[in-house]
Amino acid sequence: MPASPSLPAGKSPEEILRLRARLLGPSLSVSYRAPLKIVRGEGAYLFDETGRAYLDCVNNVCHVGHSHPRVAAAACRQMATLNTNTRYLHDAIIDYAARLTATLPEPLRVCFFVNSGSEANDLALRLARAHTGGTDMVVLDGAYHGNLSSLIDLSPYKFDGPGGAGAPPHTHVVPMPDPYRGLYRRGDPGAGAKYAAHVGEAVGAVRASGRRLAAFFAEPILSCGGQVVPPEGFFREAYASVRAAGGVCVADEVQVGFGRVGSHFWAFETHGVAPDIVTMGKPIGNGHPLAAVVTTPEVAASFANGMEYFNTFGGNPVSCAVGLAVLEVIEEEGLQANARRVGAHLTARLTDLMARHRLIGDVRGRGLFLGVELVRDRARLEPAAEEAAEVVERAKERGVLLSADGPLHNVLKIKPPLVFSEADADRLAETLDAVLAEVR
Amino acid sequence: MPASPSLPAGKSPEEILRLRARLLGPSLSVSYRAPLKIVRGEGAYLFDETGRAYLDCVNNVCHVGHSHPRVAAAACRQMATLNTNTRYLHDAIIDYAARLTATLPEPLRVCFFVNSGSEANDLALRLARAHTGGTDMVVLDGAYHGNLSSLIDLSPYKFDGPGGAGAPPHTHVVPMPDPYRGLYRRGDPGAGAKYAAHVGEAVGAVRASGRRLAAFFAEPILSCGGQVVPPEGFFREAYASVRAAGGVCVADEVQVGFGRVGSHFWAFETHGVAPDIVTMGKPIGNGHPLAAVVTTPEVAASFANGMEYFNTFGGNPVSCAVGLAVLEVIEEEGLQANARRVGAHLTARLTDLMARHRLIGDVRGRGLFLGVELVRDRARLEPAAEEAAEVVERAKERGVLLSADGPLHNVLKIKPPLVFSEADADRLAETLDAVLAEVR
Repeated sequence: MPASPSLPAGKSPEEILRLRARLLGPSLSVSYRAPLKIVRGEGAYLFDETGRAYLDCVNNVCHVGHSHPRVAAAACRQMATLNTNTRYLHDAIIDYAARLTATLPEPLRVCFFVNSGSEANDLALRLARAHTGGTDMVVLDGAYHGNLSSLIDLSPYKFDGPGGAGAPPHTHVVPMPDPYRGLYRRGDPGAGAKYAAHVGEAVGAVRASGRRLAAFFAEPILSCGGQVVPPEGFFREAYASVRAAGGVCVADEVQVGFGRVGSHFWAFETHGVAPDIVTMGKPIGNGHPLAAVVTTPEVAASFANGMEYFNTFGGNPVSCAVGLAVLEVIEEEGLQANARRVGAHLTARLTDLMARHRLIGDVRGRGLFLGVELVRDRARLEPAAEEAAEVVERAKERGVLLSADGPLHNVLKIKPPLVFSEADADRLAETLDAVLAEVR
Repeated sequence: MPASPSLPAGKSPEEILRLRARLLGPSLSVSYRAPLKIVRGEGAYLFDETGRAYLDCVNNVCHVGHSHPRVAAAACRQMATLNTNTRYLHDAIIDYAARLTATLPEPLRVCFFVNSGSEANDLALRLARAHTGGTDMVVLDGAYHGNLSSLIDLSPYKFDGPGGAGAPPHTHVVPMPDPYRGLYRRGDPGAGAKYAAHVGEAVGAVRASGRRLAAFFAEPILSCGGQVVPPEGFFREAYASVRAAGGVCVADEVQVGFGRVGSHFWAFETHGVAPDIVTMGKPIGNGHPLAAVVTTPEVAASFANGMEYFNTFGGNPVSCAVGLAVLEVIEEEGLQANARRVGAHLTARLTDLMARHRLIGDVRGRGLFLGVELVRDRARLEPAAEEAAEVVERAKERGVLLSADGPLHNVLKIKPPLVFSEADADRLAETLDAVLAEVR
């Protein structure tokens, strides 16, 4: 664990909360019953204003570790030299685009740089519509694709949640391909095909209603949906149905990309498919507002219909320098391999806990993108949402940061910075062991 | 002019162009017939790879000057310490929100931090719809509000331009309040009221069609529309009609805010109105991907309907440190006063040029947000678009960067970094004088 910080304490948490209530929109909530004031980050650790360290098991944005010195140095150097827009020529955007596309299969070679995963997903939607001439979208139940108006419309997590207005006419929701709790489960070797058949049905219904399909939008592993890994075969067959109907396939890698799954750099690769459009965000800049869409030359050509696409900040030299530094760090520090090794170790430790804690119904995920689903009864799968919230609070008291999510609010999400070590994994497992013993 | 740089030259412009054609979407064009490779920026100057300096008269993003050392230092310091999300408490977001809202009239006190002007305008749209229960929007002809799908739908500049599909049913376009070329002109003391009557009509038509008004979206001074200053009284009466019909008024200050107009910090203040929602972008972070929406507690409360609004990168400590540094530099370097003084000097110099150059039909704007409209005939106002393009190219050859825009592509846009000096203004005026003598 890094040494304790020596920073000025600033305002008290109570004062910040009081000022937030006055100065920030009330639609933004804070984490934990007694919210944390965090003043410093290093590696997999965050520090509060008293110098107390917390092991961060949930921050998938600071991908290569909090405040990584090399990423900060790249940004500093470029900010002191030049930050301007992409209507001028600059090496950084080209160096970065070349490096980024080298991680992807052909023909995913054309980049658009934007400032957030939401901007990336909105652009993917525009690309898909321009390429297909269609408007309609097939999405997975429980999915979240971003905070923009067009993306709330693609996110059952939002439009079917509090304050939501339901699916708009152009959005078609298929059952979540959840092998633990869904329609077809782990024991069923045909589960993937059966879930994919719902995609085929949705695609057929679009056509039957006289509407036209644009895209199938999906995360290769669901995040807000509850860290759900769709079963073998699902994506292959779903993509085939969508393409047969003239739609394109969008892989939303905003949460799961950049080596997190360990075995591969991109989560879609674990399913043996290649999308037409990939969207990237969160970890791409280790916290810097950067995101990207990568697509094929054909899709990009369809979008170039005479309407210019210019993004003021997108692809600026600072953002590209940061993105490039993140890719270099992932490679040079072997973070994908670390995600694989530590992820396997952590999965084994968490699976072991199932023997002692009946509350754990399922342990799942890939690499360092894991979920622990809590249930009150392993046969009926009664969700243990209050218990999950309690586990999160008690782990925090012990200096370990987690969160709970999923449609039933009963899945512990584990998605730490990729510098997470085996010792960190052991600490997390031991903390969960202790906390689960208290929460029954 | 700052000293010439000593940076590695990197790839040639030709090689970058070749690689861009392969790696970047073709919907993004570059500036100038022979595009510039820019490797360094300082103050109001940009430098190419040979060390040649260009006076930047058009970059309204690097507001306090290219690569401002204080802004870069603030970002560096914070990036090396902590960059995380707003679900934890941090001083920077509160310090920044307090400082930013102090520039605005009551009751504009509630901030939402996002990553681009487009994200800000999309959020404004969501806020307006949540507050009013309406869907429909009134916009000015020629307006551009952003590159997201929801904002293309609010931008006649886009939906009536190449590749556009026209106005969607929820968007109602009123004539551009252009006192030079529009329906009602400078000699008409009732022009403002007459333009506002079109807003009243549009609002009435929304109601008559059984639809419901959400907002009137407008830039206080039009930018892509051609640097157009709407006439006295227009905004006061338009805002009154909109509010009488239950709509809210959104001021898009993405291009014109932060002291650029000289006399005031916000361009809406020059019209004696106060919007319900203000959106900010471009200059807010001097190039860092930062933007904001500020609204009233009432509008923010309507939006808090149970649906969380969380923006992964929005309001992070680095972005807030950058935003705070920009506000401090504007104040401490007296940049608003500089915009006023240098803007007045430049306006006088440009107006003088009208006597010698028949091509100049109009000189207009406020502070350092100016437009020079070129016409082939001052009576018929025949637009001189080719001439404007030629002026831009020839000025660039002389080391002065400009652009041309407006619905007829015949308006020279002048919106330099606010550190622009009187000597810079003189150089611009002299360059235009020489170039206009060549282009007839």
